[in-house]
Amino acid sequence: MKVSSRAIGIFDSGVGGLTVAKEVFKKLPSENVIYFGDTARTPYGPRSAEIVKKFSVQNISFLSTQGVKLIVVACNTASAVALDYLKRIFQLPLMGVIEPGSRAAVKVTESGRIGVIGTAGTIRSKSYTKAIQKIDKKIKVFDYPCPLFVSLAEEGYINKKATYLIAQEYLTPLKKQKIDTLVLGCTHYPLLKKVISTVIGENVTLIDSAEETALEVKKILEQKDMMNPANSEPAYRFYVSDFPEKFIQISERFLGEKVKKVKKIDINKY
Amino acid sequence: MKVSSRAIGIFDSGVGGLTVAKEVFKKLPSENVIYFGDTARTPYGPRSAEIVKKFSVQNISFLSTQGVKLIVVACNTASAVALDYLKRIFQLPLMGVIEPGSRAAVKVTESGRIGVIGTAGTIRSKSYTKAIQKIDKKIKVFDYPCPLFVSLAEEGYINKKATYLIAQEYLTPLKKQKIDTLVLGCTHYPLLKKVISTVIGENVTLIDSAEETALEVKKILEQKDMMNPANSEPAYRFYVSDFPEKFIQISERFLGEKVKKVKKIDINKY
Repeated sequence: MKVSSRAIGIFDSGVGGLTVAKEVFKKLPSENVIYFGDTARTPYGPRSAEIVKKFSVQNISFLSTQGVKLIVVACNTASAVALDYLKRIFQLPLMGVIEPGSRAAVKVTESGRIGVIGTAGTIRSKSYTKAIQKIDKKIKVFDYPCPLFVSLAEEGYINKKATYLIAQEYLTPLKKQKIDTLVLGCTHYPLLKKVISTVIGENVTLIDSAEETALEVKKILEQKDMMNPANSEPAYRFYVSDFPEKFIQISERFLGEKVKKVKKIDINKY
Repeated sequence: MKVSSRAIGIFDSGVGGLTVAKEVFKKLPSENVIYFGDTARTPYGPRSAEIVKKFSVQNISFLSTQGVKLIVVACNTASAVALDYLKRIFQLPLMGVIEPGSRAAVKVTESGRIGVIGTAGTIRSKSYTKAIQKIDKKIKVFDYPCPLFVSLAEEGYINKKATYLIAQEYLTPLKKQKIDTLVLGCTHYPLLKKVISTVIGENVTLIDSAEETALEVKKILEQKDMMNPANSEPAYRFYVSDFPEKFIQISERFLGEKVKKVKKIDINKY
């Protein structure tokens, strides 16, 4: 099989990376995609860097057996704490969501004051701060963990008063920093956009890495001359490590439509 | 080593089972205890029965290598969906938290109307309903999942307005059932006792399985003549599959005091 017709691999700790998959489908309409959601071990946010690295190695090993040509680490926590490590191990082109999200934020900010919210693991790693200041070291970055946002998004607590109260508590210190741009540093957070925007103020631009990540995938494939020629309907395959029924059920919230078929694999074999 | 001086093994998906460990320490003060918290794969509540069984087999295999004399499955989800299966596989005496909790509830109820709250997995299994009606089939059981309670308890959202609002939403249908007894069918829920009691009404007795489970352990050890003679200070050992520092930090909330030393193991080796 020619490299160009191989699929793009995407993995996430669970269902959140579907926001990235959705943008890849849109921006690269002739590419085949294989998505893996590690639903047996989700969430990654509260875990140690060491275990997130280990889980990510298994996820990439699985996707490699499927003959993918490039892998997107569509999980902010894994991108933040494991990407450099993974790039040292695997030959395959690998990309995360932190750099694209950071670039988008730097493009947008006028005041040079950017906020970042994410899981405990992502924020502890300071990956966004480093990536943003690598582009422009004069930019001030204010980062805060919002650990309950993942469960609230997964349980469909999208537009509830309790979610507003929790968002207020998380975001009030950030509001005082007078940011003009806020990076949603977790693939679940776009589901809470409305709540976050209302609390942080509508003058603050929210950055969702998904779109920028898909554009980056396109750029890399073009550079490497690995784009799939547009001559057939793309094939999408979805795998999870547990509970395909639940993945299908929640997928609509992230993808806009329900995933039709999901296969379960034993991730510990990889 | 004589069987009696061997430790009692306790496992949970994470830190919640420490509420059971605490009662075992209190009711069996001369017993050695080995606790394992599967923090790399917590929570079990939203996962499939199949994967919870698989994880439980590994947890018991690990505790078996430590030479324990009895194992307490101190996780409601694992007790609910995996205990019968595990008893068929392992020779070692195994007990869960569902039967003790159910017995306590049946003892307490006067109206014969019992509520049960737990994770999605526990409620879906109908284990409490079956266990309660096995004791007295005339009792009416009303069960509701409260999935966000685990994250709220772990994040220390114990006495916040958001937690009250979520509890109100979860418990309002249960309140209408005019129960007089409510089983807290998840080891995390005792942390939210105050909120739950305020919402459900102070006339409803809350049942926390931990105490009843410890009494059951004592009964089994006496029956099998495996009680440790009270001639030395007991030794307590704690193991986790990820992030010992975080386990130590949260342990105080469940145990009343901080665990001093925790060792990390690779649970996939078992």
